[in-house]
Amino acid sequence: MFLEAIYHRPRKNWSYAYDGTTIHLRIRTKKDDITEVYALAGDKYLWDQTMEYIPMTKLSSDEMFDYWECEATPPYRRLKYGFLLQQGQEKRWMTEYDFLTEPPANPDRLFEYPFINPDDVFQPPAWVKDAIFYQIFPERFANGDTSNDPEGALPWGSAEPTPKNFFGGDLQGVIDHLDYISELGVNAIYFTPLFTATTNHKYDTEDYLEIDPQFGDKDTLKKLVDLCHARGIRVLLDAVFNHSGKTFAPFVDVQKNGMNSKYKDWFYVRSLPLEVVDGIPTYDTFAFEPLMPKLNTENPEVRAYLLKAAEYWIKETGIDGWRLDVANEVGHSFWREFRQVVKKANPDAYILGEVWHESSIWLEGDQFDAVMNYPFTNAVLDFFINRTADAEKFSFMLGKQLAGYPRQASEVMFNLLDSHDTARLLTQASGDKRLMKLAAMFQFTYFGTPCIYYGDEIGMDGGHDPGCRKCMEWDETKHDKDLFTFYQTLIKLRKEHSALRTGSFKFLHAEKNGGKIAYLREDDNETILIAINNDKAGNTITVPVLDPSWTNLWNGESLNAKQGQLTVKLPAFGFAILKAGK
Amino acid sequence: MFLEAIYHRPRKNWSYAYDGTTIHLRIRTKKDDITEVYALAGDKYLWDQTMEYIPMTKLSSDEMFDYWECEATPPYRRLKYGFLLQQGQEKRWMTEYDFLTEPPANPDRLFEYPFINPDDVFQPPAWVKDAIFYQIFPERFANGDTSNDPEGALPWGSAEPTPKNFFGGDLQGVIDHLDYISELGVNAIYFTPLFTATTNHKYDTEDYLEIDPQFGDKDTLKKLVDLCHARGIRVLLDAVFNHSGKTFAPFVDVQKNGMNSKYKDWFYVRSLPLEVVDGIPTYDTFAFEPLMPKLNTENPEVRAYLLKAAEYWIKETGIDGWRLDVANEVGHSFWREFRQVVKKANPDAYILGEVWHESSIWLEGDQFDAVMNYPFTNAVLDFFINRTADAEKFSFMLGKQLAGYPRQASEVMFNLLDSHDTARLLTQASGDKRLMKLAAMFQFTYFGTPCIYYGDEIGMDGGHDPGCRKCMEWDETKHDKDLFTFYQTLIKLRKEHSALRTGSFKFLHAEKNGGKIAYLREDDNETILIAINNDKAGNTITVPVLDPSWTNLWNGESLNAKQGQLTVKLPAFGFAILKAGK
Repeated sequence: MFLEAIYHRPRKNWSYAYDGTTIHLRIRTKKDDITEVYALAGDKYLWDQTMEYIPMTKLSSDEMFDYWECEATPPYRRLKYGFLLQQGQEKRWMTEYDFLTEPPANPDRLFEYPFINPDDVFQPPAWVKDAIFYQIFPERFANGDTSNDPEGALPWGSAEPTPKNFFGGDLQGVIDHLDYISELGVNAIYFTPLFTATTNHKYDTEDYLEIDPQFGDKDTLKKLVDLCHARGIRVLLDAVFNHSGKTFAPFVDVQKNGMNSKYKDWFYVRSLPLEVVDGIPTYDTFAFEPLMPKLNTENPEVRAYLLKAAEYWIKETGIDGWRLDVANEVGHSFWREFRQVVKKANPDAYILGEVWHESSIWLEGDQFDAVMNYPFTNAVLDFFINRTADAEKFSFMLGKQLAGYPRQASEVMFNLLDSHDTARLLTQASGDKRLMKLAAMFQFTYFGTPCIYYGDEIGMDGGHDPGCRKCMEWDETKHDKDLFTFYQTLIKLRKEHSALRTGSFKFLHAEKNGGKIAYLREDDNETILIAINNDKAGNTITVPVLDPSWTNLWNGESLNAKQGQLTVKLPAFGFAILKAGK
Repeated sequence: MFLEAIYHRPRKNWSYAYDGTTIHLRIRTKKDDITEVYALAGDKYLWDQTMEYIPMTKLSSDEMFDYWECEATPPYRRLKYGFLLQQGQEKRWMTEYDFLTEPPANPDRLFEYPFINPDDVFQPPAWVKDAIFYQIFPERFANGDTSNDPEGALPWGSAEPTPKNFFGGDLQGVIDHLDYISELGVNAIYFTPLFTATTNHKYDTEDYLEIDPQFGDKDTLKKLVDLCHARGIRVLLDAVFNHSGKTFAPFVDVQKNGMNSKYKDWFYVRSLPLEVVDGIPTYDTFAFEPLMPKLNTENPEVRAYLLKAAEYWIKETGIDGWRLDVANEVGHSFWREFRQVVKKANPDAYILGEVWHESSIWLEGDQFDAVMNYPFTNAVLDFFINRTADAEKFSFMLGKQLAGYPRQASEVMFNLLDSHDTARLLTQASGDKRLMKLAAMFQFTYFGTPCIYYGDEIGMDGGHDPGCRKCMEWDETKHDKDLFTFYQTLIKLRKEHSALRTGSFKFLHAEKNGGKIAYLREDDNETILIAINNDKAGNTITVPVLDPSWTNLWNGESLNAKQGQLTVKLPAFGFAILKAGK
């Protein structure tokens, strides 16, 4: 038995309350090393009467490890626990202290989940599990009101985007195209920043309490939110609390008054004057960008100001949550207070942090509900788009991710394939729509909340910023209708089938040195099997199944299993979404 | 290279800010598998210019693993990092995603410590590193005022303690014996609960805002705290916020008014009437103890009441912190608010949680400063007292503990060997003072804040509760003077030598199947080598040293190293505390 590979530590993904009565327990073992795992669990104050062995099942695997899971529902909300690991006849009991060859005599040295306090249970808003997001970069979606165009705004789509040019996109433009958005079928919109700022991306906030006049005003936003809600569409805004813009009044004051500014401690000033020396500002910034001075969120005045803004827009306009820019570089104590303020204003608000790396510290119930899931993006890109990972490696990357977060986090992870911060998906796929489609199909049939970057659905392309920020194409003759219908269908399927949203996920097949995968999504209502041939040649995938007959949700075709095996023939870059039953 | 054994995950003990400019990085590898480890670290926004390889050194080891550590001081407080692992000529680079055979081309998939936000840095009060605690159980320390004796109080020490009897101990009794406490040399006192309650241990609080009249009143406590402070002695009180007593007015109201009580939601009532059915109360309690109804700390009224009490006693009497009973069963969100209230009232307050198991979730800067370190207790008892662990196993238990917490947590861990909740140390040692002395000597020369349970220092004995709660012996002819002097000397040495308090800790020797250990405590001021022969026969310990001459701090003797080896002869159960230099 490979003891060094075994890992468990209380909390995070390893032991957590899934709801007010259920604790999930997980343990990691060396791949294919352990044959059976049990959790040994009970109430420490009533051990002999409550102690039981709960079988654990394999949640997922990666290159090196198997991850096992079970659930416990302790009647008094307290759980003392250890693990029994078996490899054939060999047995080891794992405690917090040791591996034992015999059962522990008492629970004293076991692991502990002391009490499920309701306040500590991580419960993201339920609606996010059912959400399908559409990301809009407001300066480039639609110009609905030319009277508010910035000086020098170029005619819509008349030029390639640059870091500095403007095209006049605004909130009225979004209002004008809500029919289009509804037709696509998404039920949530994430807007990059709307507040007053100098740049076209508006990530350099000048005033957190005003809509940028180039976009409209508070009433326009209020109208937009109301119209969206009437259509069943949620609205998420972008808060840039890591840094302000250089024109933010407090920073202007520091520039003017230096040490005498009463706003000096709103920022991290390393030395005066405020200047850039050899490319490095004398004050902390986002990256080394002089336009974006880092805010001192530890300063009570700064904190009060930003929290007021967070609350203000929820109360004034009824938005459904915040996406938080550069969220990982802002202090945890700020985010904890932020969550309290936001959830008090709207208990159903979705708090989404921009974090590109491992994010478990933000996903324990006291800070965010989800993060921008770039590790997921990377896995999908590696397999479907860049083709640097084979199917097996892809399954390992996802297996590790699924095991690395509590289930409720995986359920609402913000799964994007591109954004204003990356090249567009179609461009990354070198224009090969077949690859793009497979990637999107996977995105829509996996755990977590999918997001479409505006225009992807009609075949827009564009390289890394600024290329990915082109004006939305409104000439329907230039729309890729096939792609639009494809996305429409994916959205419809996801909406219609709960198993695709929150059903369990399990790889049935993931080909080594190849592109074939098959996976199962399953809940109490339905069983859906997805087969993908990410290969330039046609292929056949055969997997063991329990159900005899299956229906392809994409085209209505029927398939029958033979002797417990289902064989799916797929063309190059083909896929099938099969539901058990006729 | 044994990749499955390698573990790193950002935060907790693995990557944390030690102060406002320093990040500690740690990684675990299979024992004796990897020969060299480096952290590959830099600023992600200026990677090429800042990237460096920082050598890691072995912090500690246990049965299966080596734990490596280094520190990084990123100039812009941001750190992107990975690891380079070497086994002879074989190299692997560890990223957040993978093990690579070549250096990563860019920092994108490395681990990240995004920014050192000062607010998030875990900084326990500095004084605790220098503190030596004395634990007093007030009903049994001294009766200084017979006028407040409870009805039926027995003459001091006239009977064995029982769960229900009283002897009249009080705060005046402590005041009367401050000379004794000062003579011993401790500089901090931890009192078990002082507030109004029905039992002799007072863990069933009736009124959180009143001193139990059997102990005195607020003025007596105020006087006691002032007198202690004048002597340089800190005072820690015990807060029982997990549960109240059955006579707590809100609970009395629920007993009386049931569903109609306005205090119904102050508790977790499962069903009415409040009763005990087959040993299980119909309301949540501490364990299944009907006297101790669990408080609903999620209820804003309960929260406000308890936080008011926490603040009140700090402001009114100037106490130096709180020990928190059954702290692990109370919600994290409550403790986060508690910390804010307490630190605002007294930034130097020490917050000590009662948690018997792995406690890292409470020791990240937002909740406690330390926990009652029972895993340390268990290691010391296993080796010195119960003799179920050999020296090597003992070193493994501590090696795992040291690696499992951030350094600042280890520095102020509350290291106790017994308490009102365990049998007394001397009794656990079956009366063998030699074992008790070795255990205490180790306790005083190890990381963390030692605590002496009242009376241990004069040879008091007693089994598990209630045996361990005897009346303090004030007849000096019955004091074990030798033991008292022994503790006095340990306290003096610890106070005089900073290396014993906060110097680095390293095992030089830990005998397999034997009792010999040697370890080094070292800081910028001094190097101290401690050798212990935990064996019933005399022994010789030889260890490699850099310094040629050493002085035994216990008896003034000099020792010289020969060819870089220091040989220490020790009698049965003997020890030496050797300082480098003449």
